Order: sequence, then structure tokens, then C-alpha cells
Amino acid sequence: MTNKKCIIRLLRYKNALHRLKTLGFVKVFSDNLADAVGVAATQVRKDFSLFGITGNKRGGYQIDELVQRLDNIVGKGELQKIVIAGAGNIGTALMKYKNFEKEGIKIVACFDVDAGKQQNKSGEIPVLPLEEMGAFVKAKKIKIGVIAVPDSAAQQVLDAMLAAGIKGILNFAPIRLKASGDCFINNVNLVLELETVIYYIINGLDKNFSEINEDEKIA
Amino acid sequence: MTNKKCIIRLLRYKNALHRLKTLGFVKVFSDNLADAVGVAATQVRKDFSLFGITGNKRGGYQIDELVQRLDNIVGKGELQKIVIAGAGNIGTALMKYKNFEKEGIKIVACFDVDAGKQQNKSGEIPVLPLEEMGAFVKAKKIKIGVIAVPDSAAQQVLDAMLAAGIKGILNFAPIRLKASGDCFINNVNLVLELETVIYYIINGLDKNFSEINEDEKIA
Repeated sequence: MTNKKCIIRLLRYKNALHRLKTLGFVKVFSDNLADAVGVAATQVRKDFSLFGITGNKRGGYQIDELVQRLDNIVGKGELQKIVIAGAGNIGTALMKYKNFEKEGIKIVACFDVDAGKQQNKSGEIPVLPLEEMGAFVKAKKIKIGVIAVPDSAAQQVLDAMLAAGIKGILNFAPIRLKASGDCFINNVNLVLELETVIYYIINGLDKNFSEINEDEKIA
Repeated sequence: MTNKKCIIRLLRYKNALHRLKTLGFVKVFSDNLADAVGVAATQVRKDFSLFGITGNKRGGYQIDELVQRLDNIVGKGELQKIVIAGAGNIGTALMKYKNFEKEGIKIVACFDVDAGKQQNKSGEIPVLPLEEMGAFVKAKKIKIGVIAVPDSAAQQVLDAMLAAGIKGILNFAPIRLKASGDCFINNVNLVLELETVIYYIINGLDKNFSEINEDEKIA
């Protein structure tokens, strides 16, 4: 059984391993990874064994081998091209993020209805008219899109993305978009995330679980 | 047992109920809410019963009563004041979001090291020097903060927030901040959310679970 929680952990292990490698480490034990990611060591071993990765008690895991295995699982072998709909603050934040290329992700274009936000300077990510998105996505065979438009425009953008062949979507519009057919949608609602913090402040927290991530049980 | 998944669902029910109310509805059935939020009707009833909320088979739930109960649980009775560290794209996106007041949330100030981003016009959310954050938070007894600074500055901002009495944090910096003592941290990593979409595109999806939210099992 693979679920989102597990995938998120695998991605976290991978990021931690890259940092360890930068520091000159060659081997790693499940306990080290558990500390870095904030889970139990038994969880690390369980996750790895699900994907047929085994270490040994005395020597632990070889970092290089582990990174390669994880990259194969989470798909960092080839560069993933993505488009963004909406050049507002969230779209711009993503475009300005420097480490995507290192993660094997390339934002190839952004689309916006506002002519004032459109630009096409060389060396920068182009921001093109929204009505060009469908043809662009089809021509470049892009499979992944980010929706960062206001909620009133989100459904229309979703429909356009699906029609153009997009198969995976990260949605920041504060409405829950429903997938149809074979498209995968990850809804991220920043307001709900803030409301969750407020909930715990008002209702008090269990001191033993004062830190969560998107998948961890906390009380 | 209350966990983050359950809280997120309660917040979603509440948002769906507010929309239904706007449309003139008076009563709602667990099936309606289940459809709106994308869970099973049994889940809705289970969540409500955890908090002592019961409906009846023929009449369903009274929306007004349900909204009031949910508001009490998730704490929308009083306005929650929050501060933001970092007036970059994510901080700005939050400041520009129009619906926080309706949700009982008020961003009272933002703090940034960059003098070019600082502003203090009346009618707008002030962006003040970061070094003033501690005194401001203490003076106004603010308990909730958002970290939207680069990862290199995140730990320092966290320490300053904790020293000033902040008890709940929503962290967007792409490093996992660890809570200490009685502070609650919700880490939201936008890159990981995108990588999760990529994972599913590469590895294929189960057609029956082509849509997830942050807490739902998908395969």
C-alpha cells in the first residue's frame, strides 16, 4: 500500500540524503534518517522495505545507492516540465524558487489573463496569455500543471488543462477541484493550513505532539 | 482521538455550510456534506459524533446550529490576530487574500529585513523592520505567526517568534522546523506538494483514487 504520507516521507528522506551527501557522508542508518525527517526508525525501515530497499544492521545504507533507488521511485531521472496558470503571488513565488532544477523540475511557462503580467524576456520564464495555454501544453506534451488563479477562474483553467492533456495538477485556488477521469489533483489550501494552526492554539496541544507535518497525527 | 485530518475535515464542512447558507439552505444531510467535502457520509457522521453533534435521519442537521457548533470547535468566536515574517511572494499572497476577516483571521503586521519592502500606509497591513517583531508581538500578545522567509533565515525567525510568545506557527520555509516546548508548528512545503504530483504522474494512479487532499490515502 502506497499512500501520500509514505511518498512525502520518501521525498523527505531523499532531501535529507542529498544534504548528508553534501556534507561528505557515505553511509546512513535508519536512525539518522528518522531524526532528520522526524519519524521513528522503524517507520524508515518499513517504508524502505515496501520498495525492496534493505540495509544491514552493522553497515546501514549506502547513501549513493539509496539516493539512486529513491530517485527511481520518486521519478527524478528525467526533467519534469510543468506549466503554471496564474502569475499572481503564488505563481510568482514558484517561478522565483531557485531549487526546482536541482529537484528535476522545470517551469517552462506561466499563463495569465492580465496583459500587464505577461512577459517574454529571454532567460526568464515566459508569462503568456492564458488563451495560449492549451496549444502550448499540447505542443510540448506537458503533463503537469499548477493552478494559482483566483477561485472564480479555477474550474475553467482546470477544464482547459484537462483538454490539453495535463494529467497531474497542484491546485492552490481555495476551492476543492474534483478530478475527472485519469487526472490527479493535489489540493493545497493555504487558508485551511492557517486555520489548522489556529485550531490547535485555541484548543491546546498535546505536549508530546507539538509538531506536525501534513500527514502526521497529532493528538 | 482528534487528529489533523479530522480538523481539516471539520474546517471543510464549515466552509461548505457557509456556502450552503448563502444559497438559502436551512437543513443539510450528512450525504450533502459528504459530497461537498469528498468523503463518505459515514465519515461525516463519525466526525460530528466525536464532538457530540447529532442530527436525525429524517431532518438532518440544522445548518445554523451546525455552523455555531463547528465555529466553537474550530475557534471562530473571536478574531485571531496573526503576524507574518517575510514580505516576499508568499507573505504578500497572504496579505492580499481578501477573505481572512470573514474567517475570523486578522493579519496585523508583516516584518521584513528589506527596507524596500517596508511600508506603513494607513489602511494597509504595515510591513515593519524584522527587528521590531519581538516587541510588537509581545506588546499585542499575538500567539500565531507565519514564517515566509528563505530557509537560511527561518530558524532565526522561529527563535525570535518563540521568545516573543508565539505559540502556533505556519511555516512555508522549505526546511522542516522543529517545535520546542509548547509551540505548535505546521510545516507546509510547496515543493514537496509539487513533487507528490510528479510522483503520481510517473508511477501511474489508481483510477479510483484520482483525487487527494492533504490527508487522504490514495492507493
